Amino acid sequence: MDWIDETEAYYANHDFGDEVGMGNRPALVVIDLINAFTDAETNLGADFDAVVKQTERLLAAFRERDLPRYFTTVAYEESYGDAGRFIEKVPALRELEAGTDAVAVDGRLDPEAGERVILKKYASAFFGTDLGTELTTDGVDTLVLAGVTTSGCVRATAVDSLQHGYRTVVPADAVGDRADGPHRANLFDIDQKYGDVVATDDVLERLATEKDA
Amino acid sequence: MDWIDETEAYYANHDFGDEVGMGNRPALVVIDLINAFTDAETNLGADFDAVVKQTERLLAAFRERDLPRYFTTVAYEESYGDAGRFIEKVPALRELEAGTDAVAVDGRLDPEAGERVILKKYASAFFGTDLGTELTTDGVDTLVLAGVTTSGCVRATAVDSLQHGYRTVVPADAVGDRADGPHRANLFDIDQKYGDVVATDDVLERLATEKDA
Amino acid sequence: MDWIDETEAYYANHDFGDEVGMGNRPALVVIDLINAFTDAETNLGADFDAVVKQTERLLAAFRERDLPRYFTTVAYEESYGDAGRFIEKVPALRELEAGTDAVAVDGRLDPEAGERVILKKYASAFFGTDLGTELTTDGVDTLVLAGVTTSGCVRATAVDSLQHGYRTVVPADAVGDRADGPHRANLFDIDQKYGDVVATDDVLERLATEKDA
Amino acid sequence: MDWIDETEAYYANHDFGDEVGMGNRPALVVIDLINAFTDAETNLGADFDAVVKQTERLLAAFRERDLPRYFTTVAYEESYGDAGRFIEKVPALRELEAGTDAVAVDGRLDPEAGERVILKKYASAFFGTDLGTELTTDGVDTLVLAGVTTSGCVRATAVDSLQHGYRTVVPADAVGDRADGPHRANLFDIDQKYGDVVATDDVLERLATEKDA
Repeated sequence: MDWIDETEAYYANHDFGDEVGMGNRPALVVIDLINAFTDAETNLGADFDAVVKQTERLLAAFRERDLPRYFTTVAYEESYGDAGRFIEKVPALRELEAGTDAVAVDGRLDPEAGERVILKKYASAFFGTDLGTELTTDGVDTLVLAGVTTSGCVRATAVDSLQHGYRTVVPADAVGDRADGPHRANLFDIDQKYGDVVATDDVLERLATEKDA
Repeated sequence: MDWIDETEAYYANHDFGDEVGMGNRPALVVIDLINAFTDAETNLGADFDAVVKQTERLLAAFRERDLPRYFTTVAYEESYGDAGRFIEKVPALRELEAGTDAVAVDGRLDPEAGERVILKKYASAFFGTDLGTELTTDGVDTLVLAGVTTSGCVRATAVDSLQHGYRTVVPADAVGDRADGPHRANLFDIDQKYGDVVATDDVLERLATEKDA
Repeated sequence: MDWIDETEAYYANHDFGDEVGMGNRPALVVIDLINAFTDAETNLGADFDAVVKQTERLLAAFRERDLPRYFTTVAYEESYGDAGRFIEKVPALRELEAGTDAVAVDGRLDPEAGERVILKKYASAFFGTDLGTELTTDGVDTLVLAGVTTSGCVRATAVDSLQHGYRTVVPADAVGDRADGPHRANLFDIDQKYGDVVATDDVLERLATEKDA
Repeated sequence: MDWIDETEAYYANHDFGDEVGMGNRPALVVIDLINAFTDAETNLGADFDAVVKQTERLLAAFRERDLPRYFTTVAYEESYGDAGRFIEKVPALRELEAGTDAVAVDGRLDPEAGERVILKKYASAFFGTDLGTELTTDGVDTLVLAGVTTSGCVRATAVDSLQHGYRTVVPADAVGDRADGPHRANLFDIDQKYGDVVATDDVLERLATEKDA
């Protein structure tokens, strides 16, 4: 995908894509790592084992330091009245029935008591939810985003995170997509305009440094 | 860019990317066709003459039928206190000074009295603005998006348009980007998940049919 | 409460409090008529039998004409992490535990399949919910508000309804409060600035007229 | 207005109206102290000299400590297309023409460079504005509200402030209304459910203590 290198060079010359960095109070948002997405056999899912693995490392580090963690899920009622135009565009979403195992967080991540699983109906974790309020109450200034998919809910949440005033960090190996093209194209856009695209190791190192300081 | 064909085939098999269609009351949102973006000499701009031309055609059709039209601009105060983390990520935004010619709508489009130029600070035309309220007051059910850039404010507005419950239509030749890779990659994502990607001619034909009916 | 008459006279002279009227597609929002509020024995509740009775009449009329209906409830997780500063200000809210009978809609109103019970965490039915999106999808232009309390969630929803662009109608006998002072004071403010305060009979008559037309 | 004492007693027995207190990073929001409101000769205005005086004291204290300050104004375009249903309900709003002296902040308060005057179209300072984003960027955890009117934009902003996760403080003598009834009734509601109603002296004392600490 050569256009990425070319376009990167173009942007570098035009004052895009600076690094914003992490603040003092990062939170981890684990996006849509629910069974319907992590099961490669469904219309919505793919093999996201590597993403789950990196997310587990991030989760462990945030838990150890008692930094805020939130999960998201997507689930619809039987009437799908709450699925608006989204389900007309993406009929595959009908698999996401409220109360079923499909919309539960993947067992490997296993949310603890006090870690909220925020129910959303659309792409962004901020849209139609009280995530923004929780972040304010918890004094958060930086969002680290993990989960799926890069071209869907991760991208939408990254844009909204920047718009809401948060430093935004996306560890490339802790987010994933059904196909590599959209994954890379969206990481590119995020890095140029909305958040810092880094590696999970970078985030862990940064957290470790903070702790020692 | 072969990944697009491949990924398209994958999605077609997984129940993504259906057509939602237009409703009874479409509105046109002309995104950021301001001098700073249409002037190829600036850090933010590129040659968007073709986009302006298609947008003029759409604008004429919406004006003729007296359907709602809105423009957007982005402008910051001298302190840039209103530019949040966005200007840290994209220093090129500093060109967008409130009150200067850079943030005025391109003269070729020339907003009429009664056509609002909505001031936004971020990517989505909905974020931090009262666009949603105007759409409700005007009874709009469909948004047609024109302008720039496909990978920036057009994409962000398309996602928010779907999230807010609107049928979303993006004429591919009436939106543009600084580089072709992000342009095509984002049209792909929009078409699979958020809105119908069509041609300007399709929109005009549809409006003409309505009128005859 | 003489200040109401006096102040009404003042406002009448200052071009406040005109009637906005109903549009073509009204929806009914039944606010927080859940057991915790309709049970006079709890810290949150009072005797709202008359309010429930008027709401039943409205509900029957909206069901008969197949106009959109929504219910709201408020419920918190065991951690109360989702209750923000609200529960610090109003400790009585701790009764609203998710999954308990306290947060179920009063059995006399009995939501039908397809009538959504929207979960909110704060005062306004719009805040942190996708109510706005449902209204757009359903083509609504007018909100009729019933439920409790006038000085709390009804007032907050009325303000947001106007702000979001909806014609707003509050039948005075279909909303209620724990005490008469705040009930009357808030109806006064709503009528002067945000929505039309009418009687349940007026709404029913208007709906009947529409039908005959 | 005896109902206030009675109702206060009722609430005191029902676990409402606790004190939330100030946090570590308060911001001052000066609401709508613009000429149209501070000029008693207009349909919108009244004698708010005492409110302006208390606001000046707060402003001086926040400036001295370099804590964040924001002003709001309300202004509409010539078409009033941006005034939605609000202007139908309150025709007096037509005085608020963009670009005129009526919508400029009262000269006695004189915003400094770097103090933003946020343009809103509706009651709440959060609605359709990027105030929330600025607060996040500035690390704010507490809002102190001054200005007018208690029953209008102050009340709406207090509710939204609580909803967005902020500790909310309303100095009773730094906010005002056109009539005393709505002023007192709304302070009562705010104090029971949304924010701490205190005196300007209390806020100043608290800021002074912080400084010494």
